Amino acid sequence: MELVAKLSCADQPGIVNAVTSAILAGSGNILENQQFTDPITNLFVMRTKFQTELSTKEIASKFHEALNRFQINLEIFPAEYRKKTLVFASQESHCLRDLLYLSEIGDLQIEIVGVISNHESLKDLVELAKVQFFYVPRNNQIEIIKLISQIQPDLMVLARYMQILNSEICQQNIGKIINIHHSFLPGFKGAKPYHQAYERGVKIIGATAHFVTEHLDEGPIIIQDISHVDHAYEPVDLISVGRDIERRVLSKAVKLFAQDKIFLVGNKTIVF
Amino acid sequence: MELVAKLSCADQPGIVNAVTSAILAGSGNILENQQFTDPITNLFVMRTKFQTELSTKEIASKFHEALNRFQINLEIFPAEYRKKTLVFASQESHCLRDLLYLSEIGDLQIEIVGVISNHESLKDLVELAKVQFFYVPRNNQIEIIKLISQIQPDLMVLARYMQILNSEICQQNIGKIINIHHSFLPGFKGAKPYHQAYERGVKIIGATAHFVTEHLDEGPIIIQDISHVDHAYEPVDLISVGRDIERRVLSKAVKLFAQDKIFLVGNKTIVF
Amino acid sequence: MELVAKLSCADQPGIVNAVTSAILAGSGNILENQQFTDPITNLFVMRTKFQTELSTKEIASKFHEALNRFQINLEIFPAEYRKKTLVFASQESHCLRDLLYLSEIGDLQIEIVGVISNHESLKDLVELAKVQFFYVPRNNQIEIIKLISQIQPDLMVLARYMQILNSEICQQNIGKIINIHHSFLPGFKGAKPYHQAYERGVKIIGATAHFVTEHLDEGPIIIQDISHVDHAYEPVDLISVGRDIERRVLSKAVKLFAQDKIFLVGNKTIVF
Amino acid sequence: MELVAKLSCADQPGIVNAVTSAILAGSGNILENQQFTDPITNLFVMRTKFQTELSTKEIASKFHEALNRFQINLEIFPAEYRKKTLVFASQESHCLRDLLYLSEIGDLQIEIVGVISNHESLKDLVELAKVQFFYVPRNNQIEIIKLISQIQPDLMVLARYMQILNSEICQQNIGKIINIHHSFLPGFKGAKPYHQAYERGVKIIGATAHFVTEHLDEGPIIIQDISHVDHAYEPVDLISVGRDIERRVLSKAVKLFAQDKIFLVGNKTIVF
Repeated sequence: MELVAKLSCADQPGIVNAVTSAILAGSGNILENQQFTDPITNLFVMRTKFQTELSTKEIASKFHEALNRFQINLEIFPAEYRKKTLVFASQESHCLRDLLYLSEIGDLQIEIVGVISNHESLKDLVELAKVQFFYVPRNNQIEIIKLISQIQPDLMVLARYMQILNSEICQQNIGKIINIHHSFLPGFKGAKPYHQAYERGVKIIGATAHFVTEHLDEGPIIIQDISHVDHAYEPVDLISVGRDIERRVLSKAVKLFAQDKIFLVGNKTIVF
Repeated sequence: MELVAKLSCADQPGIVNAVTSAILAGSGNILENQQFTDPITNLFVMRTKFQTELSTKEIASKFHEALNRFQINLEIFPAEYRKKTLVFASQESHCLRDLLYLSEIGDLQIEIVGVISNHESLKDLVELAKVQFFYVPRNNQIEIIKLISQIQPDLMVLARYMQILNSEICQQNIGKIINIHHSFLPGFKGAKPYHQAYERGVKIIGATAHFVTEHLDEGPIIIQDISHVDHAYEPVDLISVGRDIERRVLSKAVKLFAQDKIFLVGNKTIVF
Repeated sequence: MELVAKLSCADQPGIVNAVTSAILAGSGNILENQQFTDPITNLFVMRTKFQTELSTKEIASKFHEALNRFQINLEIFPAEYRKKTLVFASQESHCLRDLLYLSEIGDLQIEIVGVISNHESLKDLVELAKVQFFYVPRNNQIEIIKLISQIQPDLMVLARYMQILNSEICQQNIGKIINIHHSFLPGFKGAKPYHQAYERGVKIIGATAHFVTEHLDEGPIIIQDISHVDHAYEPVDLISVGRDIERRVLSKAVKLFAQDKIFLVGNKTIVF
Repeated sequence: MELVAKLSCADQPGIVNAVTSAILAGSGNILENQQFTDPITNLFVMRTKFQTELSTKEIASKFHEALNRFQINLEIFPAEYRKKTLVFASQESHCLRDLLYLSEIGDLQIEIVGVISNHESLKDLVELAKVQFFYVPRNNQIEIIKLISQIQPDLMVLARYMQILNSEICQQNIGKIINIHHSFLPGFKGAKPYHQAYERGVKIIGATAHFVTEHLDEGPIIIQDISHVDHAYEPVDLISVGRDIERRVLSKAVKLFAQDKIFLVGNKTIVF
């Protein structure tokens, strides 16, 4: 059985040794291992993928035994686990299509358990993919909170969802909601970034996948990418080029999350 | 003889026909031709490279004859002309080195007629390249104005010049001063952009070549480029990666200027 | 009415002037104009988008009048015309999905008039998009020739079609069939390029959109793009990254073709 | 004191644990740690940067003690060690300039101990940088072997050296000689790759840094990069764009080598 352990704690000597002792004690063999110590917070983070014949529960107990002198945050998942994912969308479908297609062919290791939208236009697309569609009109955040509570998703993805989640939802799901912003943050925060980009005459446009916090467009950045554009691109052309960047960046961020490769440290991310 | 004509005027039918008539009247043949009409200002801009047996003066008179019913701005240069370029630098030499080397091997079609610096540390480097070095201490803008007036450069390049030119210089040289800013504008204006980028946790860093205006970091953008970075890059690493982007972007902007391929239209550029 | 004229002929003085005279004679105004003379073949190519009150037929006659002393190839289309496009696919759907979606939202200016496949697995996907699906088993090239002859497409697109068109089809449709090859040609011609790339240990993988000729993977290249990869990418990961490059590159090539921006000159393309 | 350990051996359970035990036994703390197991050769490779109060020799003995049941290859260097580097160049100076400049400012952690050239034209450039210049005419490989034997470099860099090292030199320095080839291998092996690229009409050009083996342009690839080009680029333009890619790719490969981040595994590299 292949497992992934994701752990973090204040850096100090002996952590990696303790982790590898725990894995050895479970007759395990490490397949992949990545670690990083954030120089500002001194937080040590580690992702280890390993083979073992023990169950998730048994190996977790070995970890806690070996690591009990460190105050660690630890998560252990079977490597094959598909994270339960709730997607939010509005009218633009390009990001949603990509998530549905890539999860269907197994390229994204997620199970899309529902799509919430403040419009009904994407209902057919979602239901054809055999995913449940929830129409929740704008500002009915109580309904959204209820759905989150029922579904208990591992991950929420705002796939060009043109509405702000209220602060209660943001606060209770720190590090669990990924948004795609259609500019290279911190450039062009707020509405209509492609129009802002056109006004400013920039020669590159971009998109940013970030964790959602209460502070709009200020959340920890996961990944970003850009395309080169020139004077002949009007806003409609920027939007067209942007669609491709947005879906690519968002799908990649979701893939990394699904593989337990993203750590949230303060207002930044560590991405393996 | 090969000439380049660069012209702009309010868009209206018949301009291209009039230009090509003028070239035909001079027994010329067009080698390259690019044009664009800015949809906001309705300004038409055109760059034409052509062969002719007439002199620059004779062909200019053909142009004015053919185009006298349009109110045009017209510049005609021999295609081989090397623009007289005055470079400004401080202590960082990577951009300056590139300009000196690329102009020496003929890759940049400019003649560097002097380097002004507010430090003396780059003197040897400049003089080895047989270029005149002017040490002008910080805030002696009168001396700078005098030098510009003597040298009459076609182009001024701020190659990581860590000092602001005063508004008189900016206003009298609109569209003639290129600066390299070490971020992808409009992100991270102002000082220490790599440190700002580190604080914000961005996953791309960039550089922007732009025309200098009185308003710092707000000038018309010429070109931009980026590199991907990750959580392991500390400010010193961002600076190292940034060096390569900066010199590449600045040299490319200077190359485009030298080839008469940049048009300034309002607060934007049209780059062929 | 907006029209696009696409013309080519041996380079000589006076062509652009004659074209612009023809447009002026039709009371037209040029909106976009691009031209290039290939230094090897001396072929002059030009794409002009202009406004006029004349019909396509009337303006074509003005062009022929003005240009009758040059031996030109000329095509004139209404700028809004959507090229009739026949798509070929096998089992992989990512490129096909993109073409269907982008043409549906108007981002690709084509009308997909049919999809031919040597498998039945994509039938539902195609019919949901209200496009006709033709199942043509492998090696039934006579059926394909019949369909092409009935449909008379302006463009054929091989969207990961894992079968070779016979030489009759290739020869009769020079410059009209676009293929996506899943490597950066000339690297990794032939089958299983991602496996070849893995064996060689390359650090970039790519995709190439090219016109189809009789000589497999030797056709004129239209556009190419790449992504960076590292030692941890096994063939399945290269295929996953490749999917995104392939669809992006193919859709972009189709977009350029739809806008009459691709000229075939010998074994190369000129792309505006 | 900061040390870097670089080790490889056949993969088996317990290696990481043994390494971390050795470091703990030396009262060390791990700062960076990367590892990978090649799925084809089953070779495990690891790079660990750690702090310790022991000497390099003492810690090496701890490593050998802890790891004596594994047959490991082990190298331990002080993190601050600058690798002794011998550069080979011919007439083109762009790569050499970059190596000299970047090592001078400390951005490349190497000490350039000499430049060998089959031309005398770069002598002044090299001596100005206070580096010894060796003029060795073409085909005098015995002289080169003698110089290598005297200098005992950690690394040799072929910085656009237009001559082939003989097989004796190649065989005795496996994994120690880095070359820059001016194309994206395996495309355009051999001479004049930019001319080959022009003939083929490619839309991207590139450069590849690779370890030198006896088989020209077949060595293990370290890194590669590309730039987009179009039909208007003639060979001289491709060469100009290529210069920038070459120096960037070569300097980056040298930087990675200097940091002990490159492992040679069969005909591939693992690059951390």
